[in-house]
Amino acid sequence: MSKGLLIVLSGPSGVGKGTVCNALRGKMDNLVYSVSATTRVPRIGEENGVNYFFKSHDEFKYMMENEQLLEYAEYVGNYYGTPRDFVEDTLQSGKDIILEIEVQGALKVKEKFPEGIFIFLLPPSLDELKDRICGRGTETQATIDHRLSVAVDEIGLVGHYDYAVVNDQIDQACKRIESIVIAEHCKVRG
Amino acid sequence: MSKGLLIVLSGPSGVGKGTVCNALRGKMDNLVYSVSATTRVPRIGEENGVNYFFKSHDEFKYMMENEQLLEYAEYVGNYYGTPRDFVEDTLQSGKDIILEIEVQGALKVKEKFPEGIFIFLLPPSLDELKDRICGRGTETQATIDHRLSVAVDEIGLVGHYDYAVVNDQIDQACKRIESIVIAEHCKVRG
Repeated sequence: MSKGLLIVLSGPSGVGKGTVCNALRGKMDNLVYSVSATTRVPRIGEENGVNYFFKSHDEFKYMMENEQLLEYAEYVGNYYGTPRDFVEDTLQSGKDIILEIEVQGALKVKEKFPEGIFIFLLPPSLDELKDRICGRGTETQATIDHRLSVAVDEIGLVGHYDYAVVNDQIDQACKRIESIVIAEHCKVRG
Repeated sequence: MSKGLLIVLSGPSGVGKGTVCNALRGKMDNLVYSVSATTRVPRIGEENGVNYFFKSHDEFKYMMENEQLLEYAEYVGNYYGTPRDFVEDTLQSGKDIILEIEVQGALKVKEKFPEGIFIFLLPPSLDELKDRICGRGTETQATIDHRLSVAVDEIGLVGHYDYAVVNDQIDQACKRIESIVIAEHCKVRG
């Protein structure tokens, strides 16, 4: 049995990574979704090992210091990261695994897993991205401006990725990602 | 408008290149089929520029000598080749073009168009290929043995190709080829 593929889906905040990732669920038989580790307290209905691996701050710190995370980041006082073991065990079992992460995190994963398939999700246009960020309706103008400026910087990093997929329509974006995975399985490797 | 992609579908004799190529027709909007030049006399119903570009031996020789063919080969006393202009004009118009050719011809095209997408169609097994060659029912045992031996040599050249697609079921092989084309359009190029 051959090893699975590591697929990293990334892109600027607001581009629709989560929505596309959810839409992919159930469409692809051989694809497992990476489960993140977090220090955040579980919400009602969340299960350990399904939604997240829930860790204490000490446990998370141990994982950080012992190379057990492919990447991690702090967000509103809690840590989130990608456990290396879960990824490697899935690949060894012959299944593909998809990580949905921020642009900086994806580039950290690339350092450790250069053989991964790095897909950058692009908005159809910057205007459209602005609409999507504003659409959440919870942000001040300054926050919107800042997030848009970060997004523009992140889009400048697309050259570090293998594929760029425009998220114009969710089903089209999903079809492109599915096609990339099928094609990568057909690739002749040197 | 961006240039189209040159897709070269090749593989050993008997693997089903023609069948797969025909099944792809109509499935992919942006795909044009390369029209070969030949010195063979048109059969009833064949149209110049549709089935083939019909050429005299002198015209074909002129094309050979003036780099107007991406590859050519002789078969039962007639020449067959791929006109460069037709391929380049199609690519310039923003459409993809597919060439269905023999393994040696594909490698010649690769010398001239290294940016092409080279797909090798594989039989599910050598036994299956043998059955397909025998299945034509027109070959002697010596011919079958020879063709199988050539096929084995040709399969050894798969490393020169970008993708290997197993032709186990025609619709599955078509889906893989469609996926490769979609994925290649999403590729971030350096």
